[in-house]
Amino acid sequence: MSLDVRGQALKIHEEKRGKLEVVGTIPIENGQDLALAYTPGVAAPCLEIAKDKNNAYKYTIKGKTVAVVSNGTAVLGLGDIGPEASLPVIEGKALLLKRFGEVDAIPISIDSTDSNDIVNTIKNIAPGFGGIHLEDIKAPECFYIEDKLKEQLDIPVYHDDQHGTSIAVLAGLYNGLKILNKKIEEIKIVINGAGASGIAVAKLLRVAGVKDIILCDLQGAVIEGDTSLNGAQQEIAKVTNRNFEKGKLEDVIKNKDVFIGVSDGNVLTKEMVKTMNKDSVVFALANPTPEIMPDEAKAGGARIIATGRSDFPNQINNVLVFPGIFKGALKVRATDISDEMKIAAAKGLADLIKEERLNEEYIVPSVFEDGVCNAVANAVIKVAKELGLTK
Amino acid sequence: MSLDVRGQALKIHEEKRGKLEVVGTIPIENGQDLALAYTPGVAAPCLEIAKDKNNAYKYTIKGKTVAVVSNGTAVLGLGDIGPEASLPVIEGKALLLKRFGEVDAIPISIDSTDSNDIVNTIKNIAPGFGGIHLEDIKAPECFYIEDKLKEQLDIPVYHDDQHGTSIAVLAGLYNGLKILNKKIEEIKIVINGAGASGIAVAKLLRVAGVKDIILCDLQGAVIEGDTSLNGAQQEIAKVTNRNFEKGKLEDVIKNKDVFIGVSDGNVLTKEMVKTMNKDSVVFALANPTPEIMPDEAKAGGARIIATGRSDFPNQINNVLVFPGIFKGALKVRATDISDEMKIAAAKGLADLIKEERLNEEYIVPSVFEDGVCNAVANAVIKVAKELGLTK
Repeated sequence: MSLDVRGQALKIHEEKRGKLEVVGTIPIENGQDLALAYTPGVAAPCLEIAKDKNNAYKYTIKGKTVAVVSNGTAVLGLGDIGPEASLPVIEGKALLLKRFGEVDAIPISIDSTDSNDIVNTIKNIAPGFGGIHLEDIKAPECFYIEDKLKEQLDIPVYHDDQHGTSIAVLAGLYNGLKILNKKIEEIKIVINGAGASGIAVAKLLRVAGVKDIILCDLQGAVIEGDTSLNGAQQEIAKVTNRNFEKGKLEDVIKNKDVFIGVSDGNVLTKEMVKTMNKDSVVFALANPTPEIMPDEAKAGGARIIATGRSDFPNQINNVLVFPGIFKGALKVRATDISDEMKIAAAKGLADLIKEERLNEEYIVPSVFEDGVCNAVANAVIKVAKELGLTK
Repeated sequence: MSLDVRGQALKIHEEKRGKLEVVGTIPIENGQDLALAYTPGVAAPCLEIAKDKNNAYKYTIKGKTVAVVSNGTAVLGLGDIGPEASLPVIEGKALLLKRFGEVDAIPISIDSTDSNDIVNTIKNIAPGFGGIHLEDIKAPECFYIEDKLKEQLDIPVYHDDQHGTSIAVLAGLYNGLKILNKKIEEIKIVINGAGASGIAVAKLLRVAGVKDIILCDLQGAVIEGDTSLNGAQQEIAKVTNRNFEKGKLEDVIKNKDVFIGVSDGNVLTKEMVKTMNKDSVVFALANPTPEIMPDEAKAGGARIIATGRSDFPNQINNVLVFPGIFKGALKVRATDISDEMKIAAAKGLADLIKEERLNEEYIVPSVFEDGVCNAVANAVIKVAKELGLTK
């Protein structure tokens, strides 16, 4: 980050005292206003909700509001910097949910690193929210926390680091494969980074039909039976790398069609890209420094190149996804964000680019393009209704 | 509540989807805006807060935001109606905190009735808030919850049902006694209702110098040694009713100077008021039906009469208090709301009515009068600084 961006970012965060404001929607100018919004009138919605708690969707902010929750253990690329230090990020997510998704969002920073305690805390505060957006919680705890919450809550729970990334990647991949005329069932993919994002990408790609996936991290290829892996890695190892390939990234990337990096800057070289199959795809999503710079990837023979950065073509960014996910989910009071919704969201996002405009430098829309949020939201709405995942 | 108020109240709650909205304070119109409010710029405030968590006051909404927390176990006069059904009330409190105190407030409804679980949940979500406003949690749990949170947190914790009521009552009492030329150390007070409000009123009045207080509820006078009392009642019984008076309200109200009702409608009669000392004070604060209607109290000989209702003179209402409490507390990053602040807030509120305007039907200002919030806020600020209860 340049000094200039740093200074300006601090300035705007300080000037406005954070990035959100809570405002009233009802004027309170006299006793009559008070009597309706507060006592005695407020007893009327209270009693309607006491009769049927789903009336909270009708008379309170629940139906338009999600909690953006982090404990600060995996913030951006900064690591475990504590709950307070996660606040600017979760406020930012809340800001973007409103800006792009018309969703009201409230940042909740949790002072705990115990997974059961975190689950219990979120479960306890859930009555006032229509959805839970998990953010920047480290792996492998994030998997357990999300799974338990999905079991216990009847509102959608969605960990953006996992699913936002995987949906945006899949959207980009759909369009990349259209250009290259490759079939999703036939491609071979290496995912570098076996944390929350990498594992989630692998899971969703499998659901989308990809058969040959290998995960890799600093220790090398993720292989079934490696007891040094964490629980989530051991699980995904059972259904990936079925050829039991061993070695580092430079070994296992050979003869692959697609590289997906959700790891660290500068870990992929032009030479490695050269060993990939013809017409390769390189998604180098580490921020701010990609796994390989686009010109290097191109020099290595990659035809489709995407990063997480706004200053290169093909920015694969969660902002393309999460506002629409929650806009759609709240609209139909979805009870879950299922894999089918995620696939549909990726397709919706990909199909936003009409065939005549699709090209190697335009496989995903910009976050500021019209229709991005609604493409995702409408996909979620359609599938939620089809599967009866609404209330 | 009239059918008309009920219908209108439901209508406004439904039309606006609750009473609050979360809005962004920073425009996001292009990549540069995104880069400052979100990645990569957001890393700058994150890192500043990681260095010193107090920087959260500077760069996030923490310093201007409180959580309004209920578990729905004692909502208005409606009782234990559950966490969802408490949402309209806590949204209302948040609305009023903004309207009168310029404080951003977020409603948090907790799905738990276990005191330790509630304490732990609130402690866990505290990093993002500058204060905790507890609301409509039943007694005696509310005492334990507030005490434990005060021990564990370095931000102010304030249970409005206790302290909002006690501060507003004390303000009214200060001015009532001025009119009647009675000394606070010499008056005898009966408080009807030995729940959260009644006990809190007794505690604050003692700190303010009242020596002779007796609490009473449906079972009669609260007396030291009565093992049927809950823990909080047993505690207050040790320092009230030092004459060990027994009997029901009609017995113990005899020869008292002040009646404070925080109980139920229609429990006080004209005949009982007649047995009080000359120039009696009757605060009949039950809502919507007071313990005695003002004309009846007057017929019984009361000279100063207050209720909780806006359609009679002297409305003793928590709205006079809590917006100023948090406005002041946030302004100086108060670490506590101490008894000294509560006394100062009551004095500040009372002194807002200049002597020449003070009369039997004007002992407390209206919530819409200029200066109400700042009178309370300035008192809190002054005492917080004097006592070093800031950070």
